[in-house]
Amino acid sequence: MSFDELVRTPQVSIDDADIFEAHEGGKLSIELKAPLDTQRALSIAYTPGVAQVSRAIATDHTLAKKYTWANRLVAVISDGTAVLGLGDIGASASLPVMEGKSALFKTFGGLDSIPIVLDTKDPDEIVETIVRLRPTFGAVNLEDISAPRCFEIERRVIEALDCPVMHDDQHGTAIVVLAALLGATKVLDRDMHTLRVVISGAGAAGIACANILLAKGISDITVLDSQGILHAGRRDMNPFKDEMATRTNPRGLTGGLAEALDGADVFMGVSAGLVPEELIATMAPGGIVFAMSNPDPEIHPDAARKYAAVVATGRSDFPNQINNVLAFPGVFRGALDAGARRITEAMKVAAAEAIFSVVGDDLAVDHIVPSALDPRVGPAVAAAVIAASKS
Amino acid sequence: MSFDELVRTPQVSIDDADIFEAHEGGKLSIELKAPLDTQRALSIAYTPGVAQVSRAIATDHTLAKKYTWANRLVAVISDGTAVLGLGDIGASASLPVMEGKSALFKTFGGLDSIPIVLDTKDPDEIVETIVRLRPTFGAVNLEDISAPRCFEIERRVIEALDCPVMHDDQHGTAIVVLAALLGATKVLDRDMHTLRVVISGAGAAGIACANILLAKGISDITVLDSQGILHAGRRDMNPFKDEMATRTNPRGLTGGLAEALDGADVFMGVSAGLVPEELIATMAPGGIVFAMSNPDPEIHPDAARKYAAVVATGRSDFPNQINNVLAFPGVFRGALDAGARRITEAMKVAAAEAIFSVVGDDLAVDHIVPSALDPRVGPAVAAAVIAASKS
Repeated sequence: MSFDELVRTPQVSIDDADIFEAHEGGKLSIELKAPLDTQRALSIAYTPGVAQVSRAIATDHTLAKKYTWANRLVAVISDGTAVLGLGDIGASASLPVMEGKSALFKTFGGLDSIPIVLDTKDPDEIVETIVRLRPTFGAVNLEDISAPRCFEIERRVIEALDCPVMHDDQHGTAIVVLAALLGATKVLDRDMHTLRVVISGAGAAGIACANILLAKGISDITVLDSQGILHAGRRDMNPFKDEMATRTNPRGLTGGLAEALDGADVFMGVSAGLVPEELIATMAPGGIVFAMSNPDPEIHPDAARKYAAVVATGRSDFPNQINNVLAFPGVFRGALDAGARRITEAMKVAAAEAIFSVVGDDLAVDHIVPSALDPRVGPAVAAAVIAASKS
Repeated sequence: MSFDELVRTPQVSIDDADIFEAHEGGKLSIELKAPLDTQRALSIAYTPGVAQVSRAIATDHTLAKKYTWANRLVAVISDGTAVLGLGDIGASASLPVMEGKSALFKTFGGLDSIPIVLDTKDPDEIVETIVRLRPTFGAVNLEDISAPRCFEIERRVIEALDCPVMHDDQHGTAIVVLAALLGATKVLDRDMHTLRVVISGAGAAGIACANILLAKGISDITVLDSQGILHAGRRDMNPFKDEMATRTNPRGLTGGLAEALDGADVFMGVSAGLVPEELIATMAPGGIVFAMSNPDPEIHPDAARKYAAVVATGRSDFPNQINNVLAFPGVFRGALDAGARRITEAMKVAAAEAIFSVVGDDLAVDHIVPSALDPRVGPAVAAAVIAASKS
């Protein structure tokens, strides 16, 4: 069986017909909190009653937070330039993913959200458009925007808006990766700080993962992009990679995956690039493999398990799913419940620790993170974020 | 009892506490068409399944119409510059009205829609923003945008987008006014073409009402703005009023409401300006009064009924509610069902006739239009719009 066939034969069998049927007409609907089935209901929700509410907000704009849905509405915004591992497939093609995110926000965070996909890739226009939409929502989940544009766009949107903003591909990924690493090192009884970590991918997720691991005190991190290991001698990198090269790669490695993986303890894949089984075989014994690219993991988990002690992917249909759904619903829910204007680094680390804490006594090599379906995760993350917002 | 007290003591008693309580947290929610309660459901709606759908759309962009909600999603878009009769109260204060519209779209048209309120009043920026949002939705309901900006904005958005676009304050109002006039003239056994019609208000609604009545062959129409009757001798009018002055006022009237209403058969109020009872008294006997300003009618219906044979308002809590809710859900539903790229004049007239037709044998002086709650209206309007799209 080829690798491609293996990936397409996951543990939960789903054929394309089921997938496409489930997507017909989209996955979301707008519903009313109270039915408009009487003259009285119409008079309250529409004219003349609604005018009283509009008048009140016109007099005191802060009342919009109480009497509209906007204050707790998350805008899930993408330009379709870096969709899953599929790349720049365009705004319309990204919409099924954004609808999925909205479905996850509702299911696991109890939050309403609307997918917004933009027919522009220009960072100035994207920021400008989001700023103009400001009264529509209460938080922004940036999604599937390509690096390095995503770093500038997120920074500028955060600066421009007085509400929680997070590029999930960066920080959602970093949070769940840290949570999974907490679980993997605990189950293997390893000291996180002594690990040699290899991160394959220097885009949104790779940079953010490196940052959160550096912040947690892991010093031996090697980051790779499609041209190989980030090191200070390279002259072909963007400023974000340049900066990352100065903070990682303490042993001054050059080369590619072969050089990076030789003797490494942890492989984290956050790119669409495949990793040959032979290279995974060169890692130190008892290692950790997070092959998180979606939909196709960097290495099939069955192959990785021949060498690594803990193997995880980003998919729903393998064990140890390191998926952002463990993080973003609770992070936004906590930030909105706390009335926070920013999602801080402390909140992100608190979220990771909360995810890890939910695993509890169920910790095992094939259960280093909670199930994406575990209803305890969202509330635990939200509570941790609220607590972190106060410290 | 003062006029203000009268307006605030409508037939359906609602106090402010009820209204505000019903608006807490907003009136809408996002729901999932299928629950995400199993690993299999997650794998279909999110990763890895969703990637198949995104891939398919990337290959064939027309598939977005089938596999996302966008193609049938109405964006209800406002800049908050002309909200009900309240004026330029801002985007946030307009949001309860937009949420109400979305609730009406769902209830009476079976359509999902999202409220989008913009923090800009610049026509260029509004048009540009809507164009950038294009992949997000399948139709645009422009709402509560002040005249004359609304005419240019609507024209430019229609030109820029290949989907149904309608400024409801113009055309929704015109459609229901025509429907109501069909009902009023039928119940009074009057010939519509011989009527002297006075339209108070030369904004979005007034100009659109005059246009649809002119198109139906009514020739004696007098339109007024806050400065009085539109006539060719005035030099203080915008180009839209200039043009309207050349097509109305065949008897060359000058002056104000007193001159216009003297001997008139029909008064249509689509402004926030009050009309003294003494002037309504100068209308021809057996007249028609549509006092449609929201939330405060131009004249209280009890006062108008002393002189006019048929009296209507725009409110949910008086009889004969001439409200756009009779039109826009069915108009958009029909246009989307028909796959129409434009909402044409023929569709608008067909919609008016469909609304009138639903009244049927129940026609009476206090029932010239169907109830806003009548479940037959939306489907009848949609069917008429679909039929008109084919002719």
